[in-house]
Amino acid sequence: MSTAGDLSRFSINQMTVKQLSLPELVDACRDLGVVNVGLWREPVQAHGVEATAKLVRDAGLTVTTLCRGGFLTATDPDERAAALADNRRAVDEAAALGTEVLVLVSGGLPAGYRDLHGARERIADALSVLGPYAEEHGVKLAIEPLHPMYAADRCVVSTLAQALDLAERFPAHQVGVAVDTYHVWWDDRAPAQIARAGADGRIHTFQLADWTTPLPEGVLTGRGQIGDGAIDMREWQGHVETAGYTGAIEVELFNDGLWARDGREVLAETAERFVSHTAA
Amino acid sequence: MSTAGDLSRFSINQMTVKQLSLPELVDACRDLGVVNVGLWREPVQAHGVEATAKLVRDAGLTVTTLCRGGFLTATDPDERAAALADNRRAVDEAAALGTEVLVLVSGGLPAGYRDLHGARERIADALSVLGPYAEEHGVKLAIEPLHPMYAADRCVVSTLAQALDLAERFPAHQVGVAVDTYHVWWDDRAPAQIARAGADGRIHTFQLADWTTPLPEGVLTGRGQIGDGAIDMREWQGHVETAGYTGAIEVELFNDGLWARDGREVLAETAERFVSHTAA
Repeated sequence: MSTAGDLSRFSINQMTVKQLSLPELVDACRDLGVVNVGLWREPVQAHGVEATAKLVRDAGLTVTTLCRGGFLTATDPDERAAALADNRRAVDEAAALGTEVLVLVSGGLPAGYRDLHGARERIADALSVLGPYAEEHGVKLAIEPLHPMYAADRCVVSTLAQALDLAERFPAHQVGVAVDTYHVWWDDRAPAQIARAGADGRIHTFQLADWTTPLPEGVLTGRGQIGDGAIDMREWQGHVETAGYTGAIEVELFNDGLWARDGREVLAETAERFVSHTAA
Repeated sequence: MSTAGDLSRFSINQMTVKQLSLPELVDACRDLGVVNVGLWREPVQAHGVEATAKLVRDAGLTVTTLCRGGFLTATDPDERAAALADNRRAVDEAAALGTEVLVLVSGGLPAGYRDLHGARERIADALSVLGPYAEEHGVKLAIEPLHPMYAADRCVVSTLAQALDLAERFPAHQVGVAVDTYHVWWDDRAPAQIARAGADGRIHTFQLADWTTPLPEGVLTGRGQIGDGAIDMREWQGHVETAGYTGAIEVELFNDGLWARDGREVLAETAERFVSHTAA
């Protein structure tokens, strides 16, 4: 039942097939020849961090990323301290799972605030604490710029240029960026920013999702299956590889239609799409 | 019943109160002391172009913009010719209405295409025909960059930088840009691009809408009432005025909630919000 084609660089992000439990996901990966997974904190915590670490280790799976830390824009001191503590736990979990990369979604504007620049500066403050902590645990932080449609309520870092402006205040082995096609495909500056990131060893993960329309209400669950939308995956793969990235390529889809289907079927389809839309 | 505060620079875009017929809109403007309107082609055509021109002229209203031309990205020769012909008609209508500014929404990717750059080049080709035609009729074209969330299906021009890269191939009195807070507020490069546009006399209109979440399905009808969202209107007004813009400030909201209410009430509320959220 293994998929034809080279899956050595393919990683399935757990959210793509969130209908599968962790043991079901691991079984399906084994059956399909998938060797890399990206995990999310909530299902990992529900299964137990140590139990998950053992499960994936025993199955020979590589954990390419843990999603996600971040949400670092609060102005309230108590909220801010709680966010830092939670991010330290996320680093601990990443280390326990044996992944090198913790993905950070920065957080949106606090209620009533209209200052994107100030919010980005609070992220920098938090990274000055979290970067060294991550390094001590052998984990790299990846700032993920999210599409500008999330700037108010989810992530004030909207472009790779902004993410790199933050990351470059820290050593590359502490803080880099996540390049996700869904978030950057519209940006004619992104190829140059990928080169900038790669020159400095700051591309900590590369993720794929396609852009399909119309967007659903709330715009969170419209990430399209590879090949269904407007994005040329090989073009973006070319950009990150020209910039020196040789790591796993993770497919991360939040999609109500895919979640309503059989998870194993979706995993098999995603692996096939990966093979047919990326360069070996 | 006139609104307290200076409305001399306020312009009500017709779509904000699309529940009002053109005669109702003109009556409401007179009652509230509103002296500027932005019009849309479809309701103007339905009322008759000449009849609309007479209606607004007799009421002493200034037409600040006509929305909209554009949709210039087709590859099919017949579709392309039809788009150019329709844009010439839009210029004729703008001239008949006595407005200097025709707003252009560029168009999205043709079905099956994934080449944003190529689509932008087809817009430049079209402008080389439409720019001189507009000049002959005393009309200026305003390329409106739309938020990146519309890049695939509506407008491949996503930033002021891209819009200016196109506009600057032509004289400023032929082609400039539309600055709309809803589309540019997330972009930390936008203030510098506004300065670039202003230095060259290319800010052909300035429009306001606020950013509110969650976005509705299809993301077309979520433009928030001034003051309800994440955007600091005075900050953006400051940017365009520092860049030399002294024209009307148009409020253009597409919002199901506002459309469901009494149109006169919405117009009065919008005028009040304008006064309280902009600098006199």
